[in-house]
Amino acid sequence: MTSFVEMLAGAERAHRSLLCVGLDPDPARFPEPWRGDATRIYDFCAGVVDATHDLVIAFKPQIAFFAAHRAEDQLERLIVHVHRVAPGVPVILDAKRGDIGSTAEHYAREVFDRYGADAVTLSPFLGFDSIEPYLRRAGKGALLLCRTSNPGGADLQEQRLASGELLYERIARLAAGPWNAKGQVGLVVGATYPAEIARVRELAPCLPLLIPGIGTQGGDAAATVRAGWRGTASKTSGPIIVSSSRAVLYPSNAGDGDFSSASRRVAEAARTELAAARG
Amino acid sequence: MTSFVEMLAGAERAHRSLLCVGLDPDPARFPEPWRGDATRIYDFCAGVVDATHDLVIAFKPQIAFFAAHRAEDQLERLIVHVHRVAPGVPVILDAKRGDIGSTAEHYAREVFDRYGADAVTLSPFLGFDSIEPYLRRAGKGALLLCRTSNPGGADLQEQRLASGELLYERIARLAAGPWNAKGQVGLVVGATYPAEIARVRELAPCLPLLIPGIGTQGGDAAATVRAGWRGTASKTSGPIIVSSSRAVLYPSNAGDGDFSSASRRVAEAARTELAAARG
Repeated sequence: MTSFVEMLAGAERAHRSLLCVGLDPDPARFPEPWRGDATRIYDFCAGVVDATHDLVIAFKPQIAFFAAHRAEDQLERLIVHVHRVAPGVPVILDAKRGDIGSTAEHYAREVFDRYGADAVTLSPFLGFDSIEPYLRRAGKGALLLCRTSNPGGADLQEQRLASGELLYERIARLAAGPWNAKGQVGLVVGATYPAEIARVRELAPCLPLLIPGIGTQGGDAAATVRAGWRGTASKTSGPIIVSSSRAVLYPSNAGDGDFSSASRRVAEAARTELAAARG
Repeated sequence: MTSFVEMLAGAERAHRSLLCVGLDPDPARFPEPWRGDATRIYDFCAGVVDATHDLVIAFKPQIAFFAAHRAEDQLERLIVHVHRVAPGVPVILDAKRGDIGSTAEHYAREVFDRYGADAVTLSPFLGFDSIEPYLRRAGKGALLLCRTSNPGGADLQEQRLASGELLYERIARLAAGPWNAKGQVGLVVGATYPAEIARVRELAPCLPLLIPGIGTQGGDAAATVRAGWRGTASKTSGPIIVSSSRAVLYPSNAGDGDFSSASRRVAEAARTELAAARG
């Protein structure tokens, strides 16, 4: 089985892309005639996947948007669909789980056995023994929150420790060092904080960085790439996975009934912008 | 509608109990003839609820144990069942969610609208703006992880800040102060760390403390009560909610077919031990 890290490197090369499309389905924003219809979550997301899978390094479904609508079965079918139409593109389940070991084992079962994701986002707040159960799954990825894209992230993550480092710097050091014996760990840093991306990249040069927050959240694509990209994915330069959700899913110029080609146009523009910044 | 905090105070008085039964259903440990049968999750948990609801201050289903088995529908029915047989007993959905504001709104919808929980456990790692969407639900409770029951909790939570305080102490101060304008916030502190419980109670005298980890995890019930209990729940003394899961669900002396009376015996013993420690 191809590992998450290998899939990332393969999709980056094959699609010449750093763009990850975030799948945050909100029925209230669906095009007509599906607007408000939660039974169309699969159809909507599969339409976006079909229109963009040759342009991306990864897809990132956000589980809350499915769970709020009792649409777990649609999430299962969606991940099967991605793996069928784009077998080389990894699926990162954005779940931000974080719990003690015995419970973490059940979450790992949910993420990898039930949903078949290739990687998952996790909170590091409960420490290494809350992460380790996910790493027992050979080749699967665990992306740890480090400096999140929201302003409130600073409340704890930017706290200065007595050692002199900031809390998010400590997380980056742990993730790049003792926590990553098996090479499955990556980090999440918001595109809204390019200086922090650069700092995390310095501390963790080889780790995949998932960078959400370009587009609607206001993160600057070019600044993100300059801060985080160090070369095509390899053993010594971790890939960056730059995620855009709402801007791709709900393009402002989408005509009703033609949403997926509008999504493709936005995704193509974002991919081009990211490629240009890479130089 | 009765608020979470009022329900806690009511159940503590009515049942003379600090005991919370954690509902972590693991089909592999179910009694015969249900062993291994995930379609019996509801039946198993409802049996425990029926046998113990007059002995508890709260029930705490842990969502991973349902999600790992595609049993979200059984969790929905279970919470309806608790509210029907024990309308005064609050349900704390143990989900440890933590995400940015727009996603947090969807999680809040999942927890309160879909499942009808009275409170939820949350990770504070993303800061106040990740908590605030849950507080918009009048009367609902938000219990923030502070010092968790696992050894790895120390990796971040026990970090000394440049200000002199430990990270978990900062969380307790924020939770008791600026984050709690509406009186809906509580804290989670593991029974395995009684000194930390005492410290959190000092910093947050009026907040409900959810204390998991007595029983199988090894937390000492009497030490927990001495560290955290300051008097019957009132505006000036927050209740403690002492949670036991595996010891109650899977009592070692349970005869097959008689699991719920064995669970009741364990719950009664734990309640008595907690009451005795209260003096």
